[in-house]
Amino acid sequence: MTTDFLVKLDIAAEMRKLGEAARAAAAELALASAAAKSKALRAAAVALNDQRGAILAANARDMAAAEQRGLTPALLDRLKLDEKRIAATAKGLDEIAAFPDPVGAVLAEWTRPNGLKIQRVRVPLGVIGIIYESRPNVTADAGGIALKAGNAAILRGGSESFHSSRAIHGCLVDGLKAAGLPVAAIQLVPTTDRAAVGEMLKLSEFIDIIVPRGGRSLIERVQAESRMPVIAHLEGNCHTYVDGAADAEMARRIVLNAKMRRTGVCGATETLLVDRRAAKLLPAILQDLLAAGCEVRGDAATQKLDARVKPATAADWDTEFLDAIIAVKLVEGVDGAIAHINRHGSHHTEAIITEDQAAAERFLARVDAAIVLHNGSTQFADGGEFGMGAEIGISTGKLPPRGPVGAEQLTSYKYVVRGTGQTRP
Amino acid sequence: MTTDFLVKLDIAAEMRKLGEAARAAAAELALASAAAKSKALRAAAVALNDQRGAILAANARDMAAAEQRGLTPALLDRLKLDEKRIAATAKGLDEIAAFPDPVGAVLAEWTRPNGLKIQRVRVPLGVIGIIYESRPNVTADAGGIALKAGNAAILRGGSESFHSSRAIHGCLVDGLKAAGLPVAAIQLVPTTDRAAVGEMLKLSEFIDIIVPRGGRSLIERVQAESRMPVIAHLEGNCHTYVDGAADAEMARRIVLNAKMRRTGVCGATETLLVDRRAAKLLPAILQDLLAAGCEVRGDAATQKLDARVKPATAADWDTEFLDAIIAVKLVEGVDGAIAHINRHGSHHTEAIITEDQAAAERFLARVDAAIVLHNGSTQFADGGEFGMGAEIGISTGKLPPRGPVGAEQLTSYKYVVRGTGQTRP
Repeated sequence: MTTDFLVKLDIAAEMRKLGEAARAAAAELALASAAAKSKALRAAAVALNDQRGAILAANARDMAAAEQRGLTPALLDRLKLDEKRIAATAKGLDEIAAFPDPVGAVLAEWTRPNGLKIQRVRVPLGVIGIIYESRPNVTADAGGIALKAGNAAILRGGSESFHSSRAIHGCLVDGLKAAGLPVAAIQLVPTTDRAAVGEMLKLSEFIDIIVPRGGRSLIERVQAESRMPVIAHLEGNCHTYVDGAADAEMARRIVLNAKMRRTGVCGATETLLVDRRAAKLLPAILQDLLAAGCEVRGDAATQKLDARVKPATAADWDTEFLDAIIAVKLVEGVDGAIAHINRHGSHHTEAIITEDQAAAERFLARVDAAIVLHNGSTQFADGGEFGMGAEIGISTGKLPPRGPVGAEQLTSYKYVVRGTGQTRP
Repeated sequence: MTTDFLVKLDIAAEMRKLGEAARAAAAELALASAAAKSKALRAAAVALNDQRGAILAANARDMAAAEQRGLTPALLDRLKLDEKRIAATAKGLDEIAAFPDPVGAVLAEWTRPNGLKIQRVRVPLGVIGIIYESRPNVTADAGGIALKAGNAAILRGGSESFHSSRAIHGCLVDGLKAAGLPVAAIQLVPTTDRAAVGEMLKLSEFIDIIVPRGGRSLIERVQAESRMPVIAHLEGNCHTYVDGAADAEMARRIVLNAKMRRTGVCGATETLLVDRRAAKLLPAILQDLLAAGCEVRGDAATQKLDARVKPATAADWDTEFLDAIIAVKLVEGVDGAIAHINRHGSHHTEAIITEDQAAAERFLARVDAAIVLHNGSTQFADGGEFGMGAEIGISTGKLPPRGPVGAEQLTSYKYVVRGTGQTRP
């Protein structure tokens, strides 16, 4: 007991030290030039490539431990680094560097009748705490995006990727040094102790916002415990609705892509809704999905169309499969689709396929989601595909930032008012 | 015990009912036309004037109870309504009606190389919970601003203003009815039981954001207990810094206005910082303040300048006096002022008086506050003065919305993507 208590005190003190250092670094970073931040990102990319031998050795340690602990093949694959993945991570940092700097932009400006000139100017958020799970490359992506927006970052990676993340973090620090920026701009929590997460979530004095990236249990823990606002990427229970006025060929093409292009991404369609008037299009769509290896779970009407369709359970309508499984249901027109989605959806990305403009506009206006799409694949739900650059997730909360969260979304603003001696009457 | 438990269950159930009704109303309101919302606001204004007799009678009940409970004269004044105050409240609703509707505005739009057209479109936040204290007119202001932005509101006023708020709320409901909008668009918690606040703060399923308006203890309770994000208007410990290069006459005029125009507003200056190089300007500034009835609490150097200056305590630098009291300190130039403000300020509104452009820009960039001002009075910290219309407070948090929170700030956005059959490669 005594020892545990002491260890806990040490972790709390250690986390506070990280917080203090981050706060000080954030004050400097807020004033850093775009050129200095880009230089740091580019130098970190060079370091990643130069030090790939050491990174791979660190990753081998993590992989050995993970295999011993019996992680699933999917988790092992997420953890694994190779030369190609390291090169892609380095390229990602170069791309962040090449993007326009969001800080300092004048978002709006106007002059009052009394002559006061008011500007709304974009500023960094401050200090961002990022808590993530197995993929070690998130260390570089998240640290790089935070830095681009002039924020200091405290990164807490998964314990299974500890050595890999440490090696990658070393490269980010090399980049900061090369650019003359404070090394505390990107810090990695130096312990795998789970108590560190709890302590981190208490640091409202030093951390302005928490970004969790991972499974539902992590995000729910963070939302319950955090004393700071949370930008949460929850589930992507995305729907594609094929309207009665859909183009048959387009509907086939989009549904297959939305479900099967990659089944493990958050923008993958999980439920297909089909207008009862478009039931005649469904056999071909089911045939495409089944031929591509997708399991189809349908309502009673869908089951009648193809013997290979399994019965859908009530839980299926609320499930993000992240797998080659799709739930299929016939609905009564666009209003039936809207009602189903607003009840079962996770406010991520929702699509309608139709040639009926009025139905499309009704769907786009009435579906409550971060992204609503007309005649396109839900798999476009991605900061890069939106032209917004690298992102650390798609926020499914109602408050801004909503949708893809890139560097620009990790900023705030201040009002800068310039007068000539005005007093208020 | 059993009775208490039952009562608590009833309050929880009652609050959930309010939440469900608000959620349903919000879905309708999000699609309401600008004209319908304006009509509701204008009809509510007419009702306020028409029903002023009933409102004054309800207020008399509140005032009698408050006097019996021995409320301070300041609190009694806040609670009191008269014909003039009711007319002003009605006029406020008309002004909100006249303002441009924020919902549906296209905040940004661009086309991707693959032809996808992306728009970021402003949408309402959803359901707003507003918890406030004694001023009954907040019922109309807060309800009106929420409605303007297409949000449903659940209002929880102070128990001392219960009958007044109910009478005012009745007028808002009359307005909603006149415009054919759902009456649950603006609901008032129908009990003074404090347990209702606790239950309200748990309703994350139905309420998207909580806005507390009141003293520090209310806001701290809400921040600690709320499961939803909170837009908090904390303290306004505002500073005016007189630089060595300040215009003497302008400095006198602005300091007097910033402190004494109204001492009870959040934008009132609480601490005056004076560049040691401008110490010669200080005697005249002190003379103005003292002549206007302001108590001056100074550091050692300031005390030497005028016998009427009292010694400042360490706590004074962190105090929002909201009274005719000012703390005064000499600092080492603009960097001394920035350091003091970033340590003691509350991130609300901070001003510099100087003719030195470089010093001004340094201050504006480095002071971390919602509003930074050059050569103007901190008393301009107000949504109306900013041309943003009515507001429900100045948010001192780092995340948006920051600064004055009007209808536009009570919105979010969604991404609307229009394609022609695109699939993701």
